[in-house]
Amino acid sequence: MKALVFHGPGEKAWESADDPAIQDPTDVIVKVDTTTICGTDLHILKGDVPAVTDGRILGHEAVGTVVETGSAVSTLHEGDRVLVPAITSCGRCSYCKLGIPAHCEAVGGIGWIFGHLIDGVQAEFARVPFAETSVHAVPEGVSDEQVLFLADILPTGYEIGVQNGRVKPGDSVAVVGAGPVGLAAIMTAALAGAGRIIAIDLAPSRLRHAKDFGATHAIESGDDVERQVMELTDGMGANVAMEAVGIPATFDLCTRLVRAGGTVANIGVHGASTTLHLEELWIKNVTITTGLVSGTTVPTLLQLVRDGRLAAEKLGTHHFGLGEIMQAYEVFSAADANDALKVVLKA
Amino acid sequence: MKALVFHGPGEKAWESADDPAIQDPTDVIVKVDTTTICGTDLHILKGDVPAVTDGRILGHEAVGTVVETGSAVSTLHEGDRVLVPAITSCGRCSYCKLGIPAHCEAVGGIGWIFGHLIDGVQAEFARVPFAETSVHAVPEGVSDEQVLFLADILPTGYEIGVQNGRVKPGDSVAVVGAGPVGLAAIMTAALAGAGRIIAIDLAPSRLRHAKDFGATHAIESGDDVERQVMELTDGMGANVAMEAVGIPATFDLCTRLVRAGGTVANIGVHGASTTLHLEELWIKNVTITTGLVSGTTVPTLLQLVRDGRLAAEKLGTHHFGLGEIMQAYEVFSAADANDALKVVLKA
Amino acid sequence: MKALVFHGPGEKAWESADDPAIQDPTDVIVKVDTTTICGTDLHILKGDVPAVTDGRILGHEAVGTVVETGSAVSTLHEGDRVLVPAITSCGRCSYCKLGIPAHCEAVGGIGWIFGHLIDGVQAEFARVPFAETSVHAVPEGVSDEQVLFLADILPTGYEIGVQNGRVKPGDSVAVVGAGPVGLAAIMTAALAGAGRIIAIDLAPSRLRHAKDFGATHAIESGDDVERQVMELTDGMGANVAMEAVGIPATFDLCTRLVRAGGTVANIGVHGASTTLHLEELWIKNVTITTGLVSGTTVPTLLQLVRDGRLAAEKLGTHHFGLGEIMQAYEVFSAADANDALKVVLKA
Amino acid sequence: MKALVFHGPGEKAWESADDPAIQDPTDVIVKVDTTTICGTDLHILKGDVPAVTDGRILGHEAVGTVVETGSAVSTLHEGDRVLVPAITSCGRCSYCKLGIPAHCEAVGGIGWIFGHLIDGVQAEFARVPFAETSVHAVPEGVSDEQVLFLADILPTGYEIGVQNGRVKPGDSVAVVGAGPVGLAAIMTAALAGAGRIIAIDLAPSRLRHAKDFGATHAIESGDDVERQVMELTDGMGANVAMEAVGIPATFDLCTRLVRAGGTVANIGVHGASTTLHLEELWIKNVTITTGLVSGTTVPTLLQLVRDGRLAAEKLGTHHFGLGEIMQAYEVFSAADANDALKVVLKA
Repeated sequence: MKALVFHGPGEKAWESADDPAIQDPTDVIVKVDTTTICGTDLHILKGDVPAVTDGRILGHEAVGTVVETGSAVSTLHEGDRVLVPAITSCGRCSYCKLGIPAHCEAVGGIGWIFGHLIDGVQAEFARVPFAETSVHAVPEGVSDEQVLFLADILPTGYEIGVQNGRVKPGDSVAVVGAGPVGLAAIMTAALAGAGRIIAIDLAPSRLRHAKDFGATHAIESGDDVERQVMELTDGMGANVAMEAVGIPATFDLCTRLVRAGGTVANIGVHGASTTLHLEELWIKNVTITTGLVSGTTVPTLLQLVRDGRLAAEKLGTHHFGLGEIMQAYEVFSAADANDALKVVLKA
Repeated sequence: MKALVFHGPGEKAWESADDPAIQDPTDVIVKVDTTTICGTDLHILKGDVPAVTDGRILGHEAVGTVVETGSAVSTLHEGDRVLVPAITSCGRCSYCKLGIPAHCEAVGGIGWIFGHLIDGVQAEFARVPFAETSVHAVPEGVSDEQVLFLADILPTGYEIGVQNGRVKPGDSVAVVGAGPVGLAAIMTAALAGAGRIIAIDLAPSRLRHAKDFGATHAIESGDDVERQVMELTDGMGANVAMEAVGIPATFDLCTRLVRAGGTVANIGVHGASTTLHLEELWIKNVTITTGLVSGTTVPTLLQLVRDGRLAAEKLGTHHFGLGEIMQAYEVFSAADANDALKVVLKA
Repeated sequence: MKALVFHGPGEKAWESADDPAIQDPTDVIVKVDTTTICGTDLHILKGDVPAVTDGRILGHEAVGTVVETGSAVSTLHEGDRVLVPAITSCGRCSYCKLGIPAHCEAVGGIGWIFGHLIDGVQAEFARVPFAETSVHAVPEGVSDEQVLFLADILPTGYEIGVQNGRVKPGDSVAVVGAGPVGLAAIMTAALAGAGRIIAIDLAPSRLRHAKDFGATHAIESGDDVERQVMELTDGMGANVAMEAVGIPATFDLCTRLVRAGGTVANIGVHGASTTLHLEELWIKNVTITTGLVSGTTVPTLLQLVRDGRLAAEKLGTHHFGLGEIMQAYEVFSAADANDALKVVLKA
Repeated sequence: MKALVFHGPGEKAWESADDPAIQDPTDVIVKVDTTTICGTDLHILKGDVPAVTDGRILGHEAVGTVVETGSAVSTLHEGDRVLVPAITSCGRCSYCKLGIPAHCEAVGGIGWIFGHLIDGVQAEFARVPFAETSVHAVPEGVSDEQVLFLADILPTGYEIGVQNGRVKPGDSVAVVGAGPVGLAAIMTAALAGAGRIIAIDLAPSRLRHAKDFGATHAIESGDDVERQVMELTDGMGANVAMEAVGIPATFDLCTRLVRAGGTVANIGVHGASTTLHLEELWIKNVTITTGLVSGTTVPTLLQLVRDGRLAAEKLGTHHFGLGEIMQAYEVFSAADANDALKVVLKA
């Protein structure tokens, strides 16, 4: 088969690779119908994720068709159309039983293994371990593209932003960073009934997208953000401030935008430590949350897509054939210049 | 009357002061029967709390008797025995209605005003604003000393440590710092059914107290704390790590002691910022909480004392007459040398 | 002044009555600008609520203007525009402190006293006890009619239906009874992100309203309701079934429509006991909730109205002058014949 | 092997049966080391559970040793000592993923299948389906008898009584019925910090046990229960009333013992419907819960046993060899006459 293979920092190729085969009784093999590229893939290509070694097939988000099943698999069958999510879940370790497969112990303590510790799904075929406890049937009448982003980015915005932030109807929510994951948080915060959703970003183009995804207000970062947020929240600050950038300055901003009793939900992937102003925050009754997505909300999100309540496909702005993946990487690597959110790759 | 009056950094005196008088219809005047000294009072005396000005009567924890009531007060009467808690609550601002009187807007956004923004309770009499929504009737058959520490330190340990930490039966809890507030957290974590309560402190004498208050394990800080906590928690880390010291090193330690899915509950009063290792924590699914006590659990704690479930009086190790308060301050200022936890001052 | 006075079962009149006066320091007097009629008022007129005695002014929902304040009132002033809700809250009893003023002990254990135990708001003026802890400022730029139904019916649907039912994004919700309170539940369930909202009623006209308020599906009661709901919920049943009629048959239906792990939220006012099929339900892992509204969500609902997220005024289908209240009662008493939901009475 | 085989109502025998064999790749075979008898087994013998047919081996609670593993089993090995709980969980159906294996769809919608739909564990050996997602490793240093009752009755009391009832520290809890499951609820309510635990039963001997398991007060049913409970709860009623009998009268009593804002947690197995006084309860803001145990708390309960916080073995009052099971049934069938709680059968 053909696959997108990592060959060390800066190096990748769409090349021939061995077809995957069943290794464990709980595996299935999936033909990849539709996949996408994640910001994490770009980090890997920069060499930021040393666990990814030369020869690894990248990619951790796909919609596919089951073509082979392991001997212990009884609820998935050849021809089943499934969403393969970013997180693998064994279903039996203590973290899986607690509903936190993000830290599944059976796959090493971090549930993200596709395109990381095992070969991924930017390929014609992929082996999916612990398939019955990991993949989701795609509802009838729903297209690949409508559910593709439920593999990672939508549940990330929803679980790590909205659920961790305990967004309730009427809440004012400030989302710092209106890139794809920020937009996913905005979209699902709106669904959860947030009253005011304030998007904050440097780029006017991203703020336009933010409004389209449900933001009620947009603030350019250059402006006096803190004052504006206070004005929009009766002087109290946001109930929930979400960090969706991944740098110290935006995290710190969130701790100033949140009201007493509120929550800072960190969604961003951070490469550096930050200064936490405990000398101000100790008295403020705030909650700060972090986390990798677990994907436990994917069944719910699938139903919301089926019911027309979540237009997840709006994140897919650029479309390619799977064989054009090198070009798709180029476009996605310069997302802002191309006004791209996410790319869609169809076999 | 006599009162303990602050006269600028390092200066205080037990001296004559004007008797307090009703100012607002919702006030009552209380004769102070029993009071104590808080670590915060020592901070004030060091000059760390500039809002406290020369002439202010200190103290924010008391058991007393109502001697006069404002014209709007209908549920408190002369002779009623009441617990005057650290936090004043108007009962009608948005924070009070949300159950967070720690940030009562009617008294300026921070509910702690006694001995801070208005005269306190280290005195023979005190004016208590918003009395009906702030004070608590002392149950019959319970002594002053049994409930005195419910004015501040017990609910702080319980609300900011145990409740914010969402301690559940069977949880492993690490408490860093076994001073009075750490002991209050230990005592109430045990009440809430924590399985293993691991106290961590520099001082062996404090660790002895910790065991007496319910800690199941004690670790001296000099030791390899992180490794020991991992061993005691099946290699996972604590469900809840509580910071009860107030310095960067102990806060950082807590972020390393907590497991994925767990909570760091900050109880300590911090005077400096800290480094937050988001480059490790972003993926760890942790929750960090901070806060000033609200006192919403005081009615529950009073019942637990009445029912013999909470021996709160154990925190009172040294006893004085109210007129001996200067001496009590000396003992409490050198608490470790005196093996003192809290002092009790009786009129 | 003029007021709508109850004179025993079947008897009422719009007649002269004494102007109300301040009785307690926490009272205010309000000029009634806009009011409405509740189904409960019709029950009173039928003689179903014996606590309401001859001479009582009816009504418990109003928007008005403060014209006089008691001596202890410091945060409300003459000229303030306020929402007077159905529930009076003292702010200091144990139920108010727990956030359940529905059972405020200061007013006798049931927070609904207007037009019940004291004179109500279907009048030109009204005395409002415990005003500062009970009334809500109306946001600028919002009309009386937009907030009027936040006095009772909207928070009833939201608190007793949606919050008690723990409606989460994606949930399937069955609402049995599409009268005004059922519509309030439907509207707020949609706001909270419910995936499928299935309205069930005998009357096609009510089902039309239901769709307009956010129901995604409508079922006529004559049909095979249970089978249809199962089909719409993947054979599992609804996550939440809300009873909004108040008779045994519809309550029983709800217990059959709910899935294992789900909630039956009773909103209806019941005059008779029902049979609970514990022989089937004991094993089903269901939760059943009941309750009178507390109004704790009114501040949130007010913000949602201000932000254009809740078109509460849609409940007001028929408009009258306050002096036309006798005619308004006639229309509301025959609501279905008049295709009326709620009436609006403006001074 | 030998096993206890059901032969229709009233008929059972300890007789030879085929040794169990692996059927599915996820099965294991367990040698039964210790087992017990459940009240449900007595119901089966009375003919109350028609799904149990002639030839079925009874029993659904055991501690055993793995002797053979299916081809897909990788985390259990020959010689592992495991707790086999009452509930089988596939780990991948929607109910298992939601944490409600009580309704596991893979085994027919009710997770209790041992000694019901498949052969049970009152035998020398047993086949355990979905083993990796169902059984629990027994911690080192803990005896069979210490954990045996974690197979069913302890988690039933804890999940269906204490967790469903949302028991918090300081709560007053009324437990109606002090048989084994009531005692399990009492024991775990005490662990969770309940303030007053009021046991109510007809039998003085059971009330003695209740006090030994943590009840703070005991009331004989013949007395004026409601008045006494009100006196013990400041006139408000219990925060949580647990039904642990399974008849209409005790369920109804619970709805009268609970305060506004509180919860009735039904634990009892009911064979008949009951009258629900909605005409009184609709306004009372109560929650009623029902349910079959899921066993999701067993890992926590195992740790509490290991840590000496839960003396679960106290439920085992009478001891037999496995071969004496017919005699054990006799004793357990006349539990009250024998002052028996649960029997322990050791191979």
